[in-house]
Amino acid sequence: MKPVIIRSIAELRHEISTFRRSNNGHRTVGFVPTMGYLHDGHASLLRKSSADNGLTVLSIFVNPIQFAPGEDLDKYPRDEARDMKVAEESGADIVFIPTVQEMYPQKRVTTVAVAEVTELLCGASRPGHFDGVATVVTKLFNIVQPDRAYFGMKDAQQIAVVTRMVQDLNMPVEIVPCPILREEDGLAMSSRNVYLNALEREQALVLSQSLSRVAEWIRDGLTASQVIARLKESISRNPLADIDYVDVLAYPDLSRPDDRQSLAEMNVSLLFAVAVRFGKTRLIDNQLLNPAEVGADVCFAK
Amino acid sequence: MKPVIIRSIAELRHEISTFRRSNNGHRTVGFVPTMGYLHDGHASLLRKSSADNGLTVLSIFVNPIQFAPGEDLDKYPRDEARDMKVAEESGADIVFIPTVQEMYPQKRVTTVAVAEVTELLCGASRPGHFDGVATVVTKLFNIVQPDRAYFGMKDAQQIAVVTRMVQDLNMPVEIVPCPILREEDGLAMSSRNVYLNALEREQALVLSQSLSRVAEWIRDGLTASQVIARLKESISRNPLADIDYVDVLAYPDLSRPDDRQSLAEMNVSLLFAVAVRFGKTRLIDNQLLNPAEVGADVCFAK
Repeated sequence: MKPVIIRSIAELRHEISTFRRSNNGHRTVGFVPTMGYLHDGHASLLRKSSADNGLTVLSIFVNPIQFAPGEDLDKYPRDEARDMKVAEESGADIVFIPTVQEMYPQKRVTTVAVAEVTELLCGASRPGHFDGVATVVTKLFNIVQPDRAYFGMKDAQQIAVVTRMVQDLNMPVEIVPCPILREEDGLAMSSRNVYLNALEREQALVLSQSLSRVAEWIRDGLTASQVIARLKESISRNPLADIDYVDVLAYPDLSRPDDRQSLAEMNVSLLFAVAVRFGKTRLIDNQLLNPAEVGADVCFAK
Repeated sequence: MKPVIIRSIAELRHEISTFRRSNNGHRTVGFVPTMGYLHDGHASLLRKSSADNGLTVLSIFVNPIQFAPGEDLDKYPRDEARDMKVAEESGADIVFIPTVQEMYPQKRVTTVAVAEVTELLCGASRPGHFDGVATVVTKLFNIVQPDRAYFGMKDAQQIAVVTRMVQDLNMPVEIVPCPILREEDGLAMSSRNVYLNALEREQALVLSQSLSRVAEWIRDGLTASQVIARLKESISRNPLADIDYVDVLAYPDLSRPDDRQSLAEMNVSLLFAVAVRFGKTRLIDNQLLNPAEVGADVCFAK
């Protein structure tokens, strides 16, 4: 069924509350917040929400306050017709597409700020980014009041930030992390991939290829800084790759693992995260691994 | 009917959702957040909520993060038995009394910060205070999910901050400001009045007495700074009064009125706010007036 397009907050609230009342409060609302230009990663979130909930709301909003000056706010790709096709095929019931004016009708003086988990990775590279994310996600949660919200693990730090915010502020919503979707050749799906020219697109494969070797390096008994060095080395072999960061952190608290220990000895989820520029396009990718689960037994012989 | 005491967030959510379901979503929830040691000002909020809503939730929580070091967190007055009596007499259905551990079970890294309207008055005197207020009110709103929340106008700046936060973050709650309640002699009711000794209690009357002359000074054609000077002069005649601030601001945006104009010429709500220490006790009081509504016609002859 074709999803309904709604552009006003009041109308969206009305539509959702009608749904809830008509079902005596027993059916749930799933929410997939996006910036649009949907790819199959987004579609997978919608399919999951649609399977889990009675109503699935997709939001498409390129949120200006999470872009720093000089970032790609103005050229961020948009294609509403294409997005509606993906939304329909993936089970969205309502597509909420507010204007900037609808979301920020007056000067905003309130900010939701999350410390610590925002200090490294993209938080360090993009000052203010996660304040903008936390603030708009809070607004959208208050508008949609979903039971569950679905986020892709490509933005692993975003999930860590939102999850912590939900805990700290007792938001009545369950955050559902969903796996990264990749193109057939391994490139993590991203709306920003459209910026890449053919050569950049080819060289960008080095991200997933390098990350895919992490399990092997863990089995080799390397420490965090040694794996970081290997990742940097592997990525840098590629002449177009301009590294923003490469890091290894415990997940989801994003604390730094003890570098005196080989990673293989750790029984904790570890996030191997990279951000690399190809030309003007900044791509991120990551892999989440628990060393205790990657067959690391050999290295305990150290 | 005796209200139910609930100390856990999970139980409170369960109780409220049972209420909502049993009424098919049509009855509303009113919420009165307090720090306890209830007086008739709090009781008036509860009575109003009880008249307006199907369920009234009172919270009692002395929120540590809104107190600065050296403030009166440790000695803030508490009396649960007395509070329960007021709650019962005033129509509260549920009294939520969480521990600090229940509200802050792990290190909090998320803050809701409101700029601008927090920069003057109590926000200037009590750094971090309104971040603490905005954060705990957000948490409580997310826990209770009320349709309406009731606040007393004695904390006029708090209402301005919370109202702006609700707008900026699209919180699905209506903020209902309620009038200041006063003792027979005019002292604004406050849990902190219990700190005053007999002499301080007597001299504290200067606050309401001085504020009661504001309408007259407006009719006299004074500007904001002239009224501020009169208020300061009137309060300072009192030897125990140690002024923290005296100010006049447009309400609720708390912008500064143009001092080249007499207040009588302004058709805008003005907040006349004072904070004064008597001994170790800091009291606040205020009066909200629209000069166009105080019979200011004579002064236009200036």
